[in-house]
Amino acid sequence: MSRGLQAVRPGIREMAGYQPGRQPAPGSRVVKLNTNESPLPPSPAVAAAIRSELGDSEGLRRYPDPISQKLRETAAAVFGCEAAWVMAGNGSDEILRIVIDTFVSEGETIGYFHPSYSLYPVLAAIRGARGRALPLFNDRGELYQPELSGIKLFFLTSPNAPLGFAFELDYIRRLASGFAGIVVVDEAYADFAEHNALGLVKEFDNLVVTRTLSKSYGLAALRVGFGIASSKLVRELDKVRDSYNLDRLAQAGARAALKDSAYLARTVDLVRRERAFLAAGLEKLGFEVRPSQTNFIFTTPPPPVRAGELYQELAARGILVRWFADPLLAHGLRITVGLRPEMEALLETINAIMNGE
Amino acid sequence: MSRGLQAVRPGIREMAGYQPGRQPAPGSRVVKLNTNESPLPPSPAVAAAIRSELGDSEGLRRYPDPISQKLRETAAAVFGCEAAWVMAGNGSDEILRIVIDTFVSEGETIGYFHPSYSLYPVLAAIRGARGRALPLFNDRGELYQPELSGIKLFFLTSPNAPLGFAFELDYIRRLASGFAGIVVVDEAYADFAEHNALGLVKEFDNLVVTRTLSKSYGLAALRVGFGIASSKLVRELDKVRDSYNLDRLAQAGARAALKDSAYLARTVDLVRRERAFLAAGLEKLGFEVRPSQTNFIFTTPPPPVRAGELYQELAARGILVRWFADPLLAHGLRITVGLRPEMEALLETINAIMNGE
Repeated sequence: MSRGLQAVRPGIREMAGYQPGRQPAPGSRVVKLNTNESPLPPSPAVAAAIRSELGDSEGLRRYPDPISQKLRETAAAVFGCEAAWVMAGNGSDEILRIVIDTFVSEGETIGYFHPSYSLYPVLAAIRGARGRALPLFNDRGELYQPELSGIKLFFLTSPNAPLGFAFELDYIRRLASGFAGIVVVDEAYADFAEHNALGLVKEFDNLVVTRTLSKSYGLAALRVGFGIASSKLVRELDKVRDSYNLDRLAQAGARAALKDSAYLARTVDLVRRERAFLAAGLEKLGFEVRPSQTNFIFTTPPPPVRAGELYQELAARGILVRWFADPLLAHGLRITVGLRPEMEALLETINAIMNGE
Repeated sequence: MSRGLQAVRPGIREMAGYQPGRQPAPGSRVVKLNTNESPLPPSPAVAAAIRSELGDSEGLRRYPDPISQKLRETAAAVFGCEAAWVMAGNGSDEILRIVIDTFVSEGETIGYFHPSYSLYPVLAAIRGARGRALPLFNDRGELYQPELSGIKLFFLTSPNAPLGFAFELDYIRRLASGFAGIVVVDEAYADFAEHNALGLVKEFDNLVVTRTLSKSYGLAALRVGFGIASSKLVRELDKVRDSYNLDRLAQAGARAALKDSAYLARTVDLVRRERAFLAAGLEKLGFEVRPSQTNFIFTTPPPPVRAGELYQELAARGILVRWFADPLLAHGLRITVGLRPEMEALLETINAIMNGE
């Protein structure tokens, strides 16, 4: 082994990196329902704000505001808290990493349910922490209150990805109240849900909520996310953040997106409507459909159809959905809610495949 | 102490965060010579590429290319290597952090010269590593070959900031060749210098060179930097990188900047010319001026003028330069090279202050 490779931390050398969903090249003619992007572009105010920030290019040579203060203020107004309770990050993935680096030392334990967001064990390995996957359901197939002793930080994905249900607030309260560590409620999909945990950060000073503009705001390209927690915790998180973590155009675009609350409401309405349409269509084809509080549906095809094969066949016909080889998930597909023509194309294609066409 | 604060890693709780240079609000009427930004906006091709990427906003809802492949290819052509030897980051600050997370375990030692970039000890503290500052000069005031035993990763800033000189390639060769750890040559300012270490990554597989578009390319607002190393090392660094670390607009803008090599050459010519003008002007006022291979000058005012007081007085008159309270640097000022009118305003203002006007 080369000297350079030998110097790599063993935990990194042995790990595989995170595998993001497939991103076809721009212009590819596929129906893309595999990475839970919004079916709509962002508010037109976003591009206008970015063009205005670009201006005559003069602003590009200057460092951006290192703390994204105006963006924090705008986000705080949306989240119903003070700006000092918000930090802005390069996607909520950056916030997840910052939270780990702030609270978890090497050898300590990071907990999360399995299945949930598959990035958590990767982030734990990068930190040199132990990852502890707890089963999402008990032996009777029900949610339960997990035992968190020995865990320093627990990620709760709510609504859960890839299954789509949201945890009750009282469940989250019980989780945080008896716990000496930190609970991170990863709310990437909360705008599509009926409730969220933002109000709980005022009750529990060991709770961090994370948000992203990649889903409901249609801004996956810009990489903007938030962490919401007590101002005392945000001050610590800020020490760990790269000093200029958010570029000038992303700050401007994100502010414009957050200010257009009517556009968000319309997007969420549309997604909920198409989610119901998709669910009904799948059920008509004999699929089992999990209730969803998100912009995707987890669904199991009727026997003898096998999800993995259906996924392949759909891809061959230009429709990308997500299939996980994980034994707990391999029976189903995760399908992003799209526009009506995409949903119709999907349902017709599934029907054709099931009829051997 | 609150439960949340108690859960913070002690090393984080005790540290102060990094203090970036002052960034006045856009539109402020100051002569800004304090954070080594380019005196020119970026190539006009940058804004054109960003506008084109924005298009009808449709692309904004899609995740960007997670590995920034096209950007790596463009950068590789500029750096004279293959794309597999390049990684792209959210500013070179992100690359520095990724390099640490890849190679340094908690309790291991990160070395760097003092003075150099003041972010290194902060990054070491975030990682939970020991920072070891080695004196930049020996007792005779000369450079020397440092003893690196016990050090896992060594940051060499070349050209050095804030002093401005570049290390000879043979010096870097000697550093890397006897060393079991990793040498990171931080070349943020290399485009202004007479030589650089890019060729050495092919000689030494334990060498990483970092670059940024924030200085010579006039793109501090966009946050784009690179790490250049053997493809084997880049593969490991990529595991540690946030999966979607660079937004779509930054990738497009950065590619356009890298392709306009004529614009870079003109910027570098202008900076070198104004650097000579500034140096001559300062020397005429009795200042001691260190030779510089960068877009800034480190200079010491003649007695009885005190650098810290001059810094304050300049700021009061609307001219921002950088002064470091560090005992090894407090005798001087770091002044970014600007356009001729800015250089003239600076020299005239210093002259007026020295004459008690």
